[in-house]
Amino acid sequence: MRMYDLIIKKRNGLELTKKEINYFVQNYTKGNIPDYQASAFLMAIYFQKMNMRETADLTMAIVESGDILDLSKIKGIKVDKHSTGGVGDTTSLVLTPMVAALGIPVAKMSGRGLGHTGGTIDKLESFNGFSVEITEEQFINNVNNKNIAIIGQTADLAPADKKIYALRDVTGTVDNISLISSSIMSKKIAAGADAIVLDVKVGDGAFMKTYEDAKELGSAMVNIGKNIGRNTVAVISDMDQPLGLAIGNALEVKEAINTLTGKGPKDLLELCLTLGSNMVVFAKKANTVDEARKMLLKTIEDGSAIAKFKEFIEAQGGDISQLEDTDKLPKAKYIVPVKSDREGYVTKINAQNIGLVAMELGAGRATKESIIDLAVGIILNKKRGEKVAKGDIIAYIHSNNESNIEKATKGILQNYKIEKEYTENIPLVYDVVR
Amino acid sequence: MRMYDLIIKKRNGLELTKKEINYFVQNYTKGNIPDYQASAFLMAIYFQKMNMRETADLTMAIVESGDILDLSKIKGIKVDKHSTGGVGDTTSLVLTPMVAALGIPVAKMSGRGLGHTGGTIDKLESFNGFSVEITEEQFINNVNNKNIAIIGQTADLAPADKKIYALRDVTGTVDNISLISSSIMSKKIAAGADAIVLDVKVGDGAFMKTYEDAKELGSAMVNIGKNIGRNTVAVISDMDQPLGLAIGNALEVKEAINTLTGKGPKDLLELCLTLGSNMVVFAKKANTVDEARKMLLKTIEDGSAIAKFKEFIEAQGGDISQLEDTDKLPKAKYIVPVKSDREGYVTKINAQNIGLVAMELGAGRATKESIIDLAVGIILNKKRGEKVAKGDIIAYIHSNNESNIEKATKGILQNYKIEKEYTENIPLVYDVVR
Repeated sequence: MRMYDLIIKKRNGLELTKKEINYFVQNYTKGNIPDYQASAFLMAIYFQKMNMRETADLTMAIVESGDILDLSKIKGIKVDKHSTGGVGDTTSLVLTPMVAALGIPVAKMSGRGLGHTGGTIDKLESFNGFSVEITEEQFINNVNNKNIAIIGQTADLAPADKKIYALRDVTGTVDNISLISSSIMSKKIAAGADAIVLDVKVGDGAFMKTYEDAKELGSAMVNIGKNIGRNTVAVISDMDQPLGLAIGNALEVKEAINTLTGKGPKDLLELCLTLGSNMVVFAKKANTVDEARKMLLKTIEDGSAIAKFKEFIEAQGGDISQLEDTDKLPKAKYIVPVKSDREGYVTKINAQNIGLVAMELGAGRATKESIIDLAVGIILNKKRGEKVAKGDIIAYIHSNNESNIEKATKGILQNYKIEKEYTENIPLVYDVVR
Repeated sequence: MRMYDLIIKKRNGLELTKKEINYFVQNYTKGNIPDYQASAFLMAIYFQKMNMRETADLTMAIVESGDILDLSKIKGIKVDKHSTGGVGDTTSLVLTPMVAALGIPVAKMSGRGLGHTGGTIDKLESFNGFSVEITEEQFINNVNNKNIAIIGQTADLAPADKKIYALRDVTGTVDNISLISSSIMSKKIAAGADAIVLDVKVGDGAFMKTYEDAKELGSAMVNIGKNIGRNTVAVISDMDQPLGLAIGNALEVKEAINTLTGKGPKDLLELCLTLGSNMVVFAKKANTVDEARKMLLKTIEDGSAIAKFKEFIEAQGGDISQLEDTDKLPKAKYIVPVKSDREGYVTKINAQNIGLVAMELGAGRATKESIIDLAVGIILNKKRGEKVAKGDIIAYIHSNNESNIEKATKGILQNYKIEKEYTENIPLVYDVVR
């Protein structure tokens, strides 16, 4: 088999065999295929596309390029949740203890990554002493005993994905449904998921800008799941404004605690219930999503969700006094209100740009080397559809550096669209693709 | 400007500016753009194509990537001829002395290259002592005094083309009209041509297999010529059987001498007259191709063409006694007739495969390191449309190695199609694109 022939075959619009796809993934990962052939091949895929069979084969070839987490020692069905990425997305922090409180095993391996705010691990490090540097044995024991644990990336999961993504990123070959969906799914499967609940964000703060694109991606991933025997569902949800109110690490931890105790923003809770109920059904703890939703709501009402969160933080060395008194979480020196210069209705909050403002305050990483400031970020005070008078506070800036407040204020004002009328009615959840 | 943005722009089907095309060619040649971005870009061009303006700009960018031969010291209009490559193509050897005999300057810079037989330089080295290692001054003096000279590749012409072609060759991005036509035209322009006559071959022995493809390529090159102010014409000619009778280096030299003295094969002469008359018109030595054709025929009749050839060979150190007595040219040890095993009409001679048989006899280079045997090759004795009885000689093998004769015999027999009837009428010249 020669890579050259595979390029020509795909360029000419023909279907690649499983063997051919494996050949590419294995040999590209090993460095036997040069980047210049791989990038021509990826561009041919961009134009000629891959069908479902090819996409599923590509996914499994990527999974098999590295370690596959063996979670067989964990009892029960391991359901993972993945978001395609948005701004102020606190769902993981809220969802995992709720689901674990229902006796469903939550075993997360997580990295840090780049973004507007840190990853789940960064956020959890708002608790003094909290650590993900535990052994795999501890990790598995914790999940078996407490139903919830998180570990840093110890295994070499889906190395082909890293290498292929790095090449796509610089060769204009990111935007292809088969390449995007296989990239996401392969990582979840390598991380040991038996079933997967996907949160596909749509809107200007998301990778997918239109409902149609988001639905196509969601369907592709659900189809991969079907092809490889992993129950998968994709929730298409709004990212045309940030989710919840908090954007920032410790700020989102506080918001998660509020939500787990019934005092969180409605949209965040609602999305957690939609995603979570699908997880509960996949884990066979409920027969219908309605039944599951009631069970999840109960974990908030009876305090079992927040108790599970506490148990989880404590088990990994975190200071739970910060959980009982959230004032003890990292706090910014300056908390500055941003006041509206107009009156009207908030018709849009540009999630993408608000996220960048938070990143510039220090909440996220622009490069791998950036150091995150856990305390800083933004708290939204008005969201889409709300009425605002001139001088009303629309948001609060949490900053540790006086000099960046003016720019952040401008950034927030510019990205709040306030108009005379609000007639649109953008749903929080567009669709659930099964 | 970033290469990444150019990839996206072309991928999305947009037209690139001259500046953007220059940026790519210059920086790729300098090594500032990595191969993996260039190959993704070339694949995007494969799918989205380039328009005429982009193709002309690409051509000139490639020309400007290296040296441009300064032939301004040569009086008159320098008309170059280029063939897209076929089997047994002796036209250059015949054409150049005929045209030079009419007082038109022929200044050729030539390389060696790969192929079924050697290049023009290899062929001319059949004359003992003939050398292309002359200084540029000698070269220009020879053209001014004798109207004809050939020099080895001293300048670094179109280095971008070499680098881009090498990448296209391994990334499935050869088959694109803009890339092919700019590659050919850039080399001719860098070699100092004021006007260009192209011989675009069509058939199974050519790169272009169908008339439509050949016409598209011819038109693209003529359009480039128009865009950059170089008179260009493209003759679309048959390569569904070898041209003339000889395939091999000294064999083709002998055939050229025969043709220059009025004893050559008709098809070779006819094609030389078609190509040559266009050269004469471009050089402003005749007003019409009909007039030019008569002038060219006269150079054979009055002996001026063969006299010019002799003068040329002598000026570059060649032994002209070999020209007067062609038996003194390199000769193979074995000359073996190939006899037909069937009777009927020759309906096809697979030019590509016959060329490979000649290469295996030693007439051409399979790799850069191969050493050419100037003496060996094939002389066809029957061509398309001719009647053949069982036992008739269809070709002669000229070999210096007894052991390869059997395989060559088989190869020739397999690639002669002999059938009961011959009804097709494939023209020698399909079309002339202006």
